[in-house]
Amino acid sequence: MGKEINVGLLGFGTVGSGTARILLEQQKIINARFGGNINLKWICDKDMGSDRGFPVPEGLLTDDLDMVLNDPDVDIFIELIGGLEPARTFVLKAIDKGKHIVTANKALLATHGFEIFRAASEKGVEVGFEASVGGGIPCIKAIKEGLAANNIQTVMGIMNGTANYILSRMTEEGEGFEEVLKDAQKLGYAEADPTYDIEGIDTAHKLAIMSTLAFGCKVTLDDIFTEGISGITPVDIAFAGELGYKVKLLAIGRSSEEGIEVRIHPTMIPASHLLAQVSGAYNALYMTGDSVGKVMLYGMGAGQMPTGSAVVADVMDIARDIAAGAVGRQHAFGIPFDSIRPAVIRPVAELSGKYYCRFNAKDRPGVLSAISGILSNHGISIESVVQKKHDFETIVPIVMLTHEAVEKDINSALKEIEALDIISEKPMIIRIEELASI
Amino acid sequence: MGKEINVGLLGFGTVGSGTARILLEQQKIINARFGGNINLKWICDKDMGSDRGFPVPEGLLTDDLDMVLNDPDVDIFIELIGGLEPARTFVLKAIDKGKHIVTANKALLATHGFEIFRAASEKGVEVGFEASVGGGIPCIKAIKEGLAANNIQTVMGIMNGTANYILSRMTEEGEGFEEVLKDAQKLGYAEADPTYDIEGIDTAHKLAIMSTLAFGCKVTLDDIFTEGISGITPVDIAFAGELGYKVKLLAIGRSSEEGIEVRIHPTMIPASHLLAQVSGAYNALYMTGDSVGKVMLYGMGAGQMPTGSAVVADVMDIARDIAAGAVGRQHAFGIPFDSIRPAVIRPVAELSGKYYCRFNAKDRPGVLSAISGILSNHGISIESVVQKKHDFETIVPIVMLTHEAVEKDINSALKEIEALDIISEKPMIIRIEELASI
Repeated sequence: MGKEINVGLLGFGTVGSGTARILLEQQKIINARFGGNINLKWICDKDMGSDRGFPVPEGLLTDDLDMVLNDPDVDIFIELIGGLEPARTFVLKAIDKGKHIVTANKALLATHGFEIFRAASEKGVEVGFEASVGGGIPCIKAIKEGLAANNIQTVMGIMNGTANYILSRMTEEGEGFEEVLKDAQKLGYAEADPTYDIEGIDTAHKLAIMSTLAFGCKVTLDDIFTEGISGITPVDIAFAGELGYKVKLLAIGRSSEEGIEVRIHPTMIPASHLLAQVSGAYNALYMTGDSVGKVMLYGMGAGQMPTGSAVVADVMDIARDIAAGAVGRQHAFGIPFDSIRPAVIRPVAELSGKYYCRFNAKDRPGVLSAISGILSNHGISIESVVQKKHDFETIVPIVMLTHEAVEKDINSALKEIEALDIISEKPMIIRIEELASI
Repeated sequence: MGKEINVGLLGFGTVGSGTARILLEQQKIINARFGGNINLKWICDKDMGSDRGFPVPEGLLTDDLDMVLNDPDVDIFIELIGGLEPARTFVLKAIDKGKHIVTANKALLATHGFEIFRAASEKGVEVGFEASVGGGIPCIKAIKEGLAANNIQTVMGIMNGTANYILSRMTEEGEGFEEVLKDAQKLGYAEADPTYDIEGIDTAHKLAIMSTLAFGCKVTLDDIFTEGISGITPVDIAFAGELGYKVKLLAIGRSSEEGIEVRIHPTMIPASHLLAQVSGAYNALYMTGDSVGKVMLYGMGAGQMPTGSAVVADVMDIARDIAAGAVGRQHAFGIPFDSIRPAVIRPVAELSGKYYCRFNAKDRPGVLSAISGILSNHGISIESVVQKKHDFETIVPIVMLTHEAVEKDINSALKEIEALDIISEKPMIIRIEELASI
């Protein structure tokens, strides 16, 4: 007879239901692998009436949060309430009572993570957060343990299924952002208020967590440059395709001697790259380490069962530590809490890269020379130009791919170009990541 | 000041050199993450003279294996000698002395794994073997811990970089197997005796390990149907391409109510599937679990630094358990040794699937009807036929894709077809895995 571990689940929504189902329906295999009993003791939610699609054993569901938080038998609390408050307060209260925490709440961790991890570290309890990034993909474990012998140079990826779903459909069907978004909402791939997903905020939460882990320094939301996908048009996606690229909402974390770059924006990546094949609601984490080289992890980045899979994996990990008397065996961020350095962040304006620029210009002689003259004045050289002449149209898109250029130079040049009277609207830029071939 | 862990490295070849380099050159980051000292105390190899490309600190290298095995200060032995003996004897001796083991030796584990794990289990020491499958990809950890809340239904993948390199080049360049193999040998991608890699034996070692882990039952080499890539011709690869497939040496492990299927053979998979994009010396593990859905892990499946990365990750994991007083915290196979069931293996002849068949036939009237008549008599229906007429040729390849058929029916039909006097050589079959789109 192995150890008994009691679990209290806070939040019985989408991921909460998946987690409860796994804990109940897979109890046999979970216990066999653990070598003891992992027992779901409480499910706590205000909504005690809704059908979650599976039978909840009697006596499990309660709306009495205080009672649950004060139950001395609970070893691990799973926080799946989401959002900042009251989740933060509950988590801190539970830690204070010496309970271990498992959470999928990336907003909470990206915002109050250090407060929570400090409290947990002082109290000697563990905080599992595999489910906060990449849904069911075991990416936190991979970077923290599997790649622990590496200096991680890059951590990037497609970390938001909603944005990727929208961009994938725009690419496949040539439809506009608004249309696809509406359909995605109808199909349940996007929320009623899709801001977090489409503006890159959810991705920023995840990149803050992943880059803190990867680089061993404290990366906060404020450090991350974030640009969403709502400005992407089918025209840009079509041009990208012609030029051999796909447009993805890419999270990019890179460490170099000059510091850390952390940014999220629509990015053109080579269509032949493995990351470009990640379509629909799938996620992928792509990392490079100095020993391991390139590693990519792929899977469902959201959804009740995949995310529940990661939550329960964390519960099992903590249960093993409890059973072995080894709580705190592994540091939450892979290194001791106090060795996490402040991050030296490189401003996006200082970074250099290649750019896709689209200018909508009046179809007049001299347009091309005016634009390229300004780019040249700012030290930006052009790799290729695509100009399509359509009969009867007076406004034509001119697309230029630049060679390596510094972003602030691009910004200054674009400002000047925008002021030309031949330019009919704000120029569009999409950053390009060439990504070494794989 | 944290715990001191002493490591003895047995075998200073390719992976041994990579492992030693990581332990020496990354000591600072490794120790920071571990929170103690992981100290490479011995490197033991008969060859004490060769240059390994980096400076070995004095006093580290020895050829006195007995002295090293008897050093009471060593906590963990890394076995990178390779092969069955003397590796098996050393490992068992070290276990008997209460030492923990880290190994990359898939041949050893697939052949003597149960003897070794039983000895380790009885002696209360740990055996880490992340490096035995997928080089630097943390796939063992993923399946054992990251996906621990799942019933794993499928574990498949491209697990041999040499075979994948050869097939990739045949696909890209249209060259023949022998030519590409010779070039791969010249470039160091294939060994002088390539049998293990090209005949699927190395892949079988890895599939034995992965399917034992995934399904919780004892899968041995004898259970695995193994067919290599030496029979694949550029003609088949070209036909596969026309039909929308790529040919990969795929390891397939599947669990169902009827039992386990474990097989390795050249396989046609949809060219649009993520696994089909895995080219060159890269590996990928593709798994499905009932909660997590599809997961793919991708990276370098061999090489001194990637494999060294996995070896050192295991050393760090075991060091954490030692430091936390939690040796044996996790079972080597994810479940207690004694709960590993015998495997119920489904014979390949009983499995059903789709088949690519190529018949080289004399260009005479009635050929197609003779072949399709025999297939039909065996209950095999044809999905599509490609017959290419070349002028002046008297032998033409006829390619047929079947609908789902049982392998023993295919075999009987092919035997009959081969006996026809219009058939000029043994028919070629390649099994097709449609793989749900991802």
